[in-house]
Amino acid sequence: VRRLARKRRGGAEDTAALSLSYKIHIASENNFPTAAGLASSAAGYACLVSALARLYGLEEELSEVARRGSGSACRSMFGGFVQWQRGERPDGTDSLALQVAPETHWPELRVLILVVSGEKKPVGSTAGMQTSVETSPLLKHRAEVVVPERLAQMMQHIQERDFEGFGQLAMRDSNQFHATCLDTFPPIFYLTDVSRHIIALAHRYNAHHGHTKVAYTFDAGPNAVVFALADAVAEFVEVVRRSFPPAANGDQFVRGLPVGSAALPQELLAAVVTEPVPGAVQYILHTK
Amino acid sequence: VRRLARKRRGGAEDTAALSLSYKIHIASENNFPTAAGLASSAAGYACLVSALARLYGLEEELSEVARRGSGSACRSMFGGFVQWQRGERPDGTDSLALQVAPETHWPELRVLILVVSGEKKPVGSTAGMQTSVETSPLLKHRAEVVVPERLAQMMQHIQERDFEGFGQLAMRDSNQFHATCLDTFPPIFYLTDVSRHIIALAHRYNAHHGHTKVAYTFDAGPNAVVFALADAVAEFVEVVRRSFPPAANGDQFVRGLPVGSAALPQELLAAVVTEPVPGAVQYILHTK
Repeated sequence: VRRLARKRRGGAEDTAALSLSYKIHIASENNFPTAAGLASSAAGYACLVSALARLYGLEEELSEVARRGSGSACRSMFGGFVQWQRGERPDGTDSLALQVAPETHWPELRVLILVVSGEKKPVGSTAGMQTSVETSPLLKHRAEVVVPERLAQMMQHIQERDFEGFGQLAMRDSNQFHATCLDTFPPIFYLTDVSRHIIALAHRYNAHHGHTKVAYTFDAGPNAVVFALADAVAEFVEVVRRSFPPAANGDQFVRGLPVGSAALPQELLAAVVTEPVPGAVQYILHTK
Repeated sequence: VRRLARKRRGGAEDTAALSLSYKIHIASENNFPTAAGLASSAAGYACLVSALARLYGLEEELSEVARRGSGSACRSMFGGFVQWQRGERPDGTDSLALQVAPETHWPELRVLILVVSGEKKPVGSTAGMQTSVETSPLLKHRAEVVVPERLAQMMQHIQERDFEGFGQLAMRDSNQFHATCLDTFPPIFYLTDVSRHIIALAHRYNAHHGHTKVAYTFDAGPNAVVFALADAVAEFVEVVRRSFPPAANGDQFVRGLPVGSAALPQELLAAVVTEPVPGAVQYILHTK
């Protein structure tokens, strides 16, 4: 970032921005579990790059710089829907993020993060992906054949704000990613029994409603990211609370954006809340 | 079986064998968990067909008949190493089992079944496989590209009694089967957190020894089938006992063929038995 700023400023000192000769002390803090498959490193590097850019008065797009810290950080430099392009160059300099649609495109879309574990994952996602590339025959097929098709489909679902298509594809693709982790040797497991319970719960909930009301996706960890439209949030949060009755932190179980209350019909409870597992979900973060 | 017997006998009644006009009362019993991914249905049908054949004095090969009860039962009509051929005909009549090598071919090979749960599995394996065929893009690739190659490799490892190659391939292929279950929609999970612990334990154990001493494979359930050569059995059983300390049935923890005792060196304990989970393995069945 400093090198870029020097280039932009040329010889002239900009008095509004910080001198480039200053040393910088960086103190970083986050309110999210680290190394739990929730992209904490992406968030951290994106934040670092943004903060330095503001400090030095840079106004250009910096996802290429953020990518050097953590690959996926390039995505986090934008809001809304972002595609991380693979690129062709071996040095990765054309592996960039592009915004597909801004955050205003689909305002009803909500995200519920079900935090099931703050434990460090046993395999870091960068090392894990490297082993997968080397050992999984299924990953090769996924990357070459399945992903290009699905990427085009997903862009269309987003453009059309088609939650049914978006949700189905998100779930299928999450499952396939974890399938390639299992096909890695030695195998990598990010999903736990609690993740499996959440997956089964989402399928029962959608089956009860006869269409896709919620869609899960899991990154490199056991925590679920659940997509839903705004009008489904309160009911599904109550379903989660009944399925994973919170232990002590009952009042802090739901964090982030406010969630309304919902009464669950008896037939929904009977069909969906079939096997409560107390304490398995630590808390839910409601966000956009 | 009765129809076949009638055909063989022609009109003449064979006095040594049972009259074909008798009604038959069948009482079946097994000493194995049912519907736990341990091929109990294959064992049952193979036993039924063998018993009826003996009753009626039939001497021919009956794997085609056994297959009609449970597909995999055709394999169980033979001892030793058996290949279940896919066949080409749509009615499945040429989907038969062939013995690759008799049980005398590799007498040092042992099987340890780690029974982790007697619970019924949530999805029967026949229904599960049908959904996988319909919904998993990775299964298609596995069936068309990966399996034919691996089958040829596996036959060679068996012919050469190459435990390193045999074990590595068994583990990789088990993982890939479960990967395609996860890629099924809705996803199918047969492995649980306990299965994952067993897998991790096997990899730590092999890593400690610097080669493949044990190899796991999981069918449609959470129970592990572990292959080992006879001289590794006592040590690995002790490792399992330390890793999953039995609760009450300490004396019935190991069943089947006798297992010698083994003292574990301190450095093996430190490297391999890292996270004991009391009671997670119900018992071990030692067989050939």
